[in-house]
Amino acid sequence: MPNGTPPTVVVIGAGFAGLATVKALEKAPVQTTLVDQHNYHLFSPLLYQVGTALLDPSEIATPVRAVVGPIDNAEFHLGRVEGIDLDSRTVKTDREDIAYDYLVVCTGSRTNFFGNRTLEERSVGLKDMDDALSLRSRVLDLFEKAKWEEDTAKHSRLLTFVVVGGGSTGIEIAGALIELIHFNLKKDFKEMDLSEVSVTLVEGSDAVLGPFHPKLQQSALRTLERKGVKVMLNTRVGEVRDGEVELSDGTVMPCGLVVWTAGVCASELGSAVASELGRGGRVPVDSTLQLPGHPEVFVIGDLAQITEDGKVLPMLAPVAQQGGRCAARNISAMAEGRTPERFKYMDKGIMSTIGRNAAVAQVGPLRIGGFVGWLAWLFVHLLLIVSFRSQVSIVVNWAWNYALNDRPARTILRADGKGEGIG
Amino acid sequence: MPNGTPPTVVVIGAGFAGLATVKALEKAPVQTTLVDQHNYHLFSPLLYQVGTALLDPSEIATPVRAVVGPIDNAEFHLGRVEGIDLDSRTVKTDREDIAYDYLVVCTGSRTNFFGNRTLEERSVGLKDMDDALSLRSRVLDLFEKAKWEEDTAKHSRLLTFVVVGGGSTGIEIAGALIELIHFNLKKDFKEMDLSEVSVTLVEGSDAVLGPFHPKLQQSALRTLERKGVKVMLNTRVGEVRDGEVELSDGTVMPCGLVVWTAGVCASELGSAVASELGRGGRVPVDSTLQLPGHPEVFVIGDLAQITEDGKVLPMLAPVAQQGGRCAARNISAMAEGRTPERFKYMDKGIMSTIGRNAAVAQVGPLRIGGFVGWLAWLFVHLLLIVSFRSQVSIVVNWAWNYALNDRPARTILRADGKGEGIG
Repeated sequence: MPNGTPPTVVVIGAGFAGLATVKALEKAPVQTTLVDQHNYHLFSPLLYQVGTALLDPSEIATPVRAVVGPIDNAEFHLGRVEGIDLDSRTVKTDREDIAYDYLVVCTGSRTNFFGNRTLEERSVGLKDMDDALSLRSRVLDLFEKAKWEEDTAKHSRLLTFVVVGGGSTGIEIAGALIELIHFNLKKDFKEMDLSEVSVTLVEGSDAVLGPFHPKLQQSALRTLERKGVKVMLNTRVGEVRDGEVELSDGTVMPCGLVVWTAGVCASELGSAVASELGRGGRVPVDSTLQLPGHPEVFVIGDLAQITEDGKVLPMLAPVAQQGGRCAARNISAMAEGRTPERFKYMDKGIMSTIGRNAAVAQVGPLRIGGFVGWLAWLFVHLLLIVSFRSQVSIVVNWAWNYALNDRPARTILRADGKGEGIG
Repeated sequence: MPNGTPPTVVVIGAGFAGLATVKALEKAPVQTTLVDQHNYHLFSPLLYQVGTALLDPSEIATPVRAVVGPIDNAEFHLGRVEGIDLDSRTVKTDREDIAYDYLVVCTGSRTNFFGNRTLEERSVGLKDMDDALSLRSRVLDLFEKAKWEEDTAKHSRLLTFVVVGGGSTGIEIAGALIELIHFNLKKDFKEMDLSEVSVTLVEGSDAVLGPFHPKLQQSALRTLERKGVKVMLNTRVGEVRDGEVELSDGTVMPCGLVVWTAGVCASELGSAVASELGRGGRVPVDSTLQLPGHPEVFVIGDLAQITEDGKVLPMLAPVAQQGGRCAARNISAMAEGRTPERFKYMDKGIMSTIGRNAAVAQVGPLRIGGFVGWLAWLFVHLLLIVSFRSQVSIVVNWAWNYALNDRPARTILRADGKGEGIG
């Protein structure tokens, strides 16, 4: 790079990792360009609340420019990355090619349908805004369809919801879905017999919330069942067909909608920087978060396979944010001729909510459940949200929902033009 | 109808007219079924605020079931009406056929592209939620595209916005668009030269806001120009081509987006009930709002051509609401063997806003402009909004916008999968 011109850092992906990188580079002697295919940063931990008609899209989608605007050495480019040329140090997008001196790749993760096209077409995941609006529209539309349906078996089928995967996303959706139905749709469809409505959570292992302590797993399971969710453990989904799903024990379950949360894999862009990918398509990186053989390239967030003390770090927002700050420090160091440092993950714990009034949280030896866990969940998530205006707006919505049990966003808005599910 | 069973009233359309009818029939000895293709009532006067990134969809879209739910003798059916059989008294929808004793048709109006397919494909109207989200996405996307464009002429073209039609919708969009650009996008695209951005309002007649007093027309014109909108009077749009629009004086104007508000016509369903339609496809009705020859059918709202004292009533929310209440009274009267009464429109005046701090309002001899007009506009529109929660949420958003000039909903969300305009 010529004397006097600061090196260019290109950051691909405006998620938790990307934003943390750009912010942490603010004082560094570099020029940063953030690239994303959307013009908003998505607060994905609350996607399920958009999907269950509680929040509006813009409450969890902050315009990237509102975040990047105040940072003097950063700019944003809207574009879809189509390739990365590591030799010529160029990012190819659908609008323009961008040259870099340092590259940070953090395009996150996506739903893993394990190559099963039928599954992909007939179920809905929950990884982006389209998914959330699609989930909301499909659930509401199934109720609208059921209202017209006079055949009892078909009526009951339309109102059977199957959530696959007992991880955080699965139990959050199942909990919110059962509350949407019991508190709101019961009123909206007061003349309809809702005794046949069911929400079933299907989990392949013998417990929900794998990474949590068994006591919290038990607590979450009891809470789910108390709210009315049927939980099937040690059960896998075999095949999803029109209007039914086949379980691993051979049972065929007629249903209206399958929500698929049983698989997550890294973004496709991983293959553009690494020929050998790790588990779930993640890119193995050095302990400094650098790409082996390419010290000028950093891979962080869900996309990166970071091994610490022999363990691979999980796909979590704190890992992504801390990774972003570490990559920024290392780029600053390299730009100033110093050596990059190792990434040390500071474990902030894990938490998961199960409808209103209940959550489980685990921070080191500390385990919190029930109502206190739920308050902790509310507090932590509010703190993490990027814009103050969204914080205000979300608090108003949460309080409204808590006091009146109302979910105001019960509008069928299709953002994707996708089909109508298997109902 | 058999003794003891109350007569069935089917109301098609959940706009201002339809909701007013259903509410006014609450105490009548009838059973009401409201049908609409969307599950929400759209508060269309604020559509332009969704289109210009100020409000979120669910703030102006109230779930129909939230309104109809508390009304004991009413229910809602989500469905698209495909035909009406006046002889067998049946409404055909894409989901089911519904028999009626009385029918109220109020499917409103839509953008009139005058059969010009090129115009329809290359411009955006503002009549429904898809339009609003499409307008928002296209405006934001043109700025994102312009950022990548190095050719000066192309750059300038992308940032040229043409609003066709100087009626209420046209000036509201033009005013909000110029403020979105000057207050928000200027900050979002701080490194871009925005001196070439232009918003042009093209109006065929010699004044904006046709139905208003000349003094208010002048006031609106001055306000628009002061805010930076170029207004071209006595000018029509000839042809819209890729990247340019040809005006009636032969000028070819390169531009990125054409917003078409120069034509409104009645919903297509008019032809299902009347063979001879009035101006703009409206259905001529008797002074009792009944369909000539079919006393059991009422046509109201924008779809109806109601002539009073020799004048056709305008397409306005108060006409629709009062029409709904009159139709409900007349149906009650007929169900009880009495004679339907004439519709008397009580003129509530007209108002229109031009960005922040300015509006014009005209109530009988009273004419209000400027800041006082704007406060009146805020007050009236808040009162009209159906749900209390939306009122709270919109006030918060308006206050936020007023205090900080922020438009939080600057997210590119396509709800329609439509093309990218002519840019």
